[in-house]
Amino acid sequence: MTASHEIGLIDRLIAGLPRSPAQLNRVHESDAELLRMQDGSVLAVTTDGVVEEIAAGLYADPFLAGWMSVAVNASDLAAVGAAPLGIVVCETLPHGADEALLAAVQRGIGESAAAHSLPVLGGDTNIGTELQLVGTALGLLPQGTPLTRLGCRPGERLYATGPLGLGSAFAFARLQQTGREPPFRPQARLAAGQALRGVASACMDTSDGAIATLDELGRLNGVGFRLTTAVEAMLHPAALALAAQAMLPPWLLLAGPHGEFELLFTVPADRGEALERAAAAGGFTPLPLGEVRPESGIELDDLRGSRVLDGGRIRNLFEDSRGDVGRYVGALLAMDTP
Amino acid sequence: MTASHEIGLIDRLIAGLPRSPAQLNRVHESDAELLRMQDGSVLAVTTDGVVEEIAAGLYADPFLAGWMSVAVNASDLAAVGAAPLGIVVCETLPHGADEALLAAVQRGIGESAAAHSLPVLGGDTNIGTELQLVGTALGLLPQGTPLTRLGCRPGERLYATGPLGLGSAFAFARLQQTGREPPFRPQARLAAGQALRGVASACMDTSDGAIATLDELGRLNGVGFRLTTAVEAMLHPAALALAAQAMLPPWLLLAGPHGEFELLFTVPADRGEALERAAAAGGFTPLPLGEVRPESGIELDDLRGSRVLDGGRIRNLFEDSRGDVGRYVGALLAMDTP
Repeated sequence: MTASHEIGLIDRLIAGLPRSPAQLNRVHESDAELLRMQDGSVLAVTTDGVVEEIAAGLYADPFLAGWMSVAVNASDLAAVGAAPLGIVVCETLPHGADEALLAAVQRGIGESAAAHSLPVLGGDTNIGTELQLVGTALGLLPQGTPLTRLGCRPGERLYATGPLGLGSAFAFARLQQTGREPPFRPQARLAAGQALRGVASACMDTSDGAIATLDELGRLNGVGFRLTTAVEAMLHPAALALAAQAMLPPWLLLAGPHGEFELLFTVPADRGEALERAAAAGGFTPLPLGEVRPESGIELDDLRGSRVLDGGRIRNLFEDSRGDVGRYVGALLAMDTP
Repeated sequence: MTASHEIGLIDRLIAGLPRSPAQLNRVHESDAELLRMQDGSVLAVTTDGVVEEIAAGLYADPFLAGWMSVAVNASDLAAVGAAPLGIVVCETLPHGADEALLAAVQRGIGESAAAHSLPVLGGDTNIGTELQLVGTALGLLPQGTPLTRLGCRPGERLYATGPLGLGSAFAFARLQQTGREPPFRPQARLAAGQALRGVASACMDTSDGAIATLDELGRLNGVGFRLTTAVEAMLHPAALALAAQAMLPPWLLLAGPHGEFELLFTVPADRGEALERAAAAGGFTPLPLGEVRPESGIELDDLRGSRVLDGGRIRNLFEDSRGDVGRYVGALLAMDTP
């Protein structure tokens, strides 16, 4: 689950579980769990299973499944500004899986771990009905304050670490079998996240799609967003091309629940120079999206006009459509009223 | 998988994966992964999925499934002598799971987390075909050397933290549907593990059964074991009762691949007093089992005589029997030649 239905479930599931006095964040407040250590450093830990994406056929390529089991967790570390320490992976392998499948999964895990500087510390293997990969990544914040989802205020600027919509474009092409899947092998923004500590006021990755990310940031901080950059200028070229081919309004590529693992972050207006330094250190080009506004909702413009999106409703549409991509896109199109 | 077939698979899976220079253990050498931190402390991390046990019907009780997802990971922390920091749990919930099932799973996780002083730091939820729970636990060794599986020498004494065989007795009764399942809610030996640091020369938990544990310790250290205590005196009363009822040789209750989460550990002969202090501090009564011998194999006595067991063969029997408990017990009985 990737939408706000999941949030309600999580809230129910965690009620009554024992919590740690050393934990800095409450549930939902950051992409990774943050634990104050005795020496003052902060340990970041996050667990994320690649389960539904495999079952839905999105990661039918076992290399990609392995790659993503590391990348999704690395992205959570990136969003809190942690330096990567390592990862453990619990693999459930299907009965009678052939050597080629196992080798491709491991190659995906290995190449992703190397690309994210996340050594594989260990793991567990089980035999089950279908392939499932659960990664748990550890990171460290040697000193100072972690990035969290909390802290943005009206008037601040909103940025992304890179163009958006590639995750949705890949998922649409893959699940609709258009035969034109854009290459998809996302690399989490670990260097960017570390460089943004002390610069960004709030940060979250787009693993659930850009609109879900903005909706969550808005709810947690009691604000909304006005996207002043035209949607067409935010989109990854492959996402824009898919929108044109499939004749979809471009903003739909921000709405899908499968993201691209960029970071969305807010910066106070007087930190422009600090942002430039962070961008140089973190190896990214900040993509200005708009600004934080006091009113809730996500206001955006595209070439056809302006609209305010109900992020909460959009986040639940995919699950409400029971995974039927055609029905889901139809429901999104019905919301396309500038 | 719980047997030495799994070890071969793991060796193949990890080949080529990037490793961390800060990791103190190599694969198989300890129950949890050990990472040296900058301040000199050691972070212990372990991931273990409760997948096959649920699929096999062993943990049909969702409370027990939740309990075990914490306990199995706590036990790995115990075996390295770590103090518990916290746990994350990635849950795959079956489509259309009812509220009662979810509540029972969460109650199991929560009560086990409280019993093991392992706060739940966070988690992830997915919807899938069947219930699967993957826990990842973190522990800390503030200073000194962790316990590992390496370090025992011929002539040293072998102990358990408590009676053995309850895990096998539970599994046999449950899977053979004898209707006489012994109560099974194991609590990992966290206090014992911490107290045994600096006292035990090697340590491993019995999560895969006592004979598998001894076989692994023997292989890693190039030794074997002579069990001088009669098997009947090692067994948990419920295991001994089940052996009598089912007319099984008692040592079979040490052979099953479902363990009881005690620790097996070795102690040099001159550390008797240190062991007494550790037992008092760790709240356990050391159960003497026998001694480390230079020759490989596990030699044991029961009321019917003495025999040397081939631990490696026993460890693969369950998988070789394809999970058929009747066939498995038959294959074990065929090895019962004093």
